[in-house]
Order: sequence, then structure tokens, then C-alpha cells
Amino acid sequence: MKHMTEYTDLPPEVIIRFREAHILKEFRKGSRILNQGDFSRETYFILKGCVRSYTIADGEEKTIDFYIEEDAVLPLNYGQDIESVHFLECVEDTIVLVSNEENERRISKEFPELTEASSTLSKRIIEKLQIQFTEYKISTPEERYKHFLQKRPQLVERIPQYQLASYLGVKPESLSRIKRRLSEK
Amino acid sequence: MKHMTEYTDLPPEVIIRFREAHILKEFRKGSRILNQGDFSRETYFILKGCVRSYTIADGEEKTIDFYIEEDAVLPLNYGQDIESVHFLECVEDTIVLVSNEENERRISKEFPELTEASSTLSKRIIEKLQIQFTEYKISTPEERYKHFLQKRPQLVERIPQYQLASYLGVKPESLSRIKRRLSEK
Repeated sequence: MKHMTEYTDLPPEVIIRFREAHILKEFRKGSRILNQGDFSRETYFILKGCVRSYTIADGEEKTIDFYIEEDAVLPLNYGQDIESVHFLECVEDTIVLVSNEENERRISKEFPELTEASSTLSKRIIEKLQIQFTEYKISTPEERYKHFLQKRPQLVERIPQYQLASYLGVKPESLSRIKRRLSEK
Repeated sequence: MKHMTEYTDLPPEVIIRFREAHILKEFRKGSRILNQGDFSRETYFILKGCVRSYTIADGEEKTIDFYIEEDAVLPLNYGQDIESVHFLECVEDTIVLVSNEENERRISKEFPELTEASSTLSKRIIEKLQIQFTEYKISTPEERYKHFLQKRPQLVERIPQYQLASYLGVKPESLSRIKRRLSEK
């Protein structure tokens, strides 16, 4: 069996250094990075793969978001003494860089020049979140689907349709209807 | 007529310094801080008052969010050469501290010790946004209303009900029905 990391673009020597520093983790498809109810002490940066964030409310799965290559995953309730309200589950074999609060403090001390990059990253995340939230709020499910196709075209092929439906806030039957309607246009 | 700033808790000498530095702005109820279609070059910190962010899509007002005392307002498309997709309108007489990119750069040079505070603030905003977005996604309008009452009890009295309905993603009639149902329980 080929090793998962063979599928990333990173040079093998970098992978080895990351692994030795315990900041690289590999997960098989279907496995969970975080469980609802656990404490969340880590953040992730996805090198390869696809992760779904979802919660179970009233016995029903509700998809919060999907993350792929070069996405940063900051769990809800990260670093707080509150049980996680959501799962992080790998939709594909996934490789992540792991960080935590101690690590962040150490890195920002050692590399003060990274502070600005980190602040820029935070601002981009805020921007992205605000825009996503706004679009979600002001759109119908059909519009949400069209946005999704436009903005994350590669993702549609990678995730099960029932998960996409739950992300859009509709039942799988409604998503099929939306797709039919759009293909008839 | 009393001056608006008499209603804040800030000492008059601080208000004067802020005004001289052009970082304090006052807006009357109903006036707009930002128009859909404008370029957004400023961020705001609310000292007093209430601001609503909304957009007009297909001739219909859709409320994105409300901001009150001690809330930071970061417009969507801030600092980008893209026309603003939303309005910022004062629900009440409002006093804000204004900042912009040049100002932020200057401040972070003069007060490097603020960088950490700013990074903490960014993280808190990300956290809050993620949680709000998740709750919105996984909730019914009735649950959203209950959350709103719980988390922002003082706000319900301050905003027109049609704006609250649009924030919750329902028609005003549906909000009335939800309230009736809850009061009967």
C-alpha cells in the first residue's frame, strides 16, 4: 500500500521533518479528527484530503462546512473548556498540519515576523466567514447550490450528495429537484 | 438639543481628543454609514447606538446582522476594490470610533504591544462568527428566535420587528406566529 503522504506535493524530506516534529497527522477516509462532546485543543491546516464539519441535532446530521487543501480548520469551541458541538470527519484520506495554543505561542515568539502573516490570515478568515454567512442568509437553497458550484466547483465531485444537501439546508430529494430544474434551463 | 456624546460613558476630554483626531463619528438615527455600491474603506467600533447591516436583493431587504455597544463592525469587502454588497444603517443615534488600513498600520507600528490584543480580538471575532453561522444553519426560525432572546435580550426591544423577522429569515407574520406559540407554552 502506498503511503498517504506520497500523494502530497511536499518533498519527502519536509514530510519527514514535519512528522518528527509531531505536527503532521494522517487520517483514513471515514475517520474522525474531532468528536462532538470532546474538548478541542488543536487547529488544522489541510495539506491533502477533505474534511467535513457536522453536528447531530435531534438525531439528524447537519453539515456545517467542508474543508479541502490549503484550508485552515479552526474548530468551534477551540481552546475553551466547553464540549465540542461538532464532529470533524474525513470525507477522503486526509493529511493535516496540526497546531495548538502552546505551539502558536512558541512559534510567534521564535518567528515574530510571522505575526503579521497570522494577522492577515485571521482577517481573510473573518472576511470569508462573513461573506459565506451573508450569502447563506440572503439566498434560497437553489441560489446556494449555484454559488457552491461557482465557488467550489472541484468540491461537488468529492462529497456525497446527502452531505451536500445537508450543507445547503435541504433534504436530498430537494437537491435532486434543484439539479433537475437547473439542467432543464 | 443635547449633544449625542453626552450619552456615552466616556469622559468629555477623551471625546474631545477623539474628535480632534478624526476618529470619532456621530450619526443620527436612520442615517447610513455605508451604502450598497460604495467602496468600504473604514471599520467601526460602536461606543453608543445600534447599527443594522442589510442588503437589498430582488427588491427585498434582507438583514445580515445588528451591532451595538462594544461591537466591532468590519464591512464585507472592506479595503477591497469591490462595491459594497450591503448597507450599514443606524437604528438609533450612533457614535462610533472609525479606523482604516492606514490608521491600523500606523497604530501597529507605534504600539507593537497592541498586536497581540488585535490578534486575540480577531480570533474572538472568528469564533463568534463561526458559532453564529453554525447556529443559524442548524436551527429552525423558532429556535433562532429563542437563541436571539437568550444571547441578545437587550436588543429585541431596540429594533423594529420587521427587521428582526428579516434577520431570522422569516416574514413578519411568521415571527408573530412564533411569538404567539411561545407565549402559549
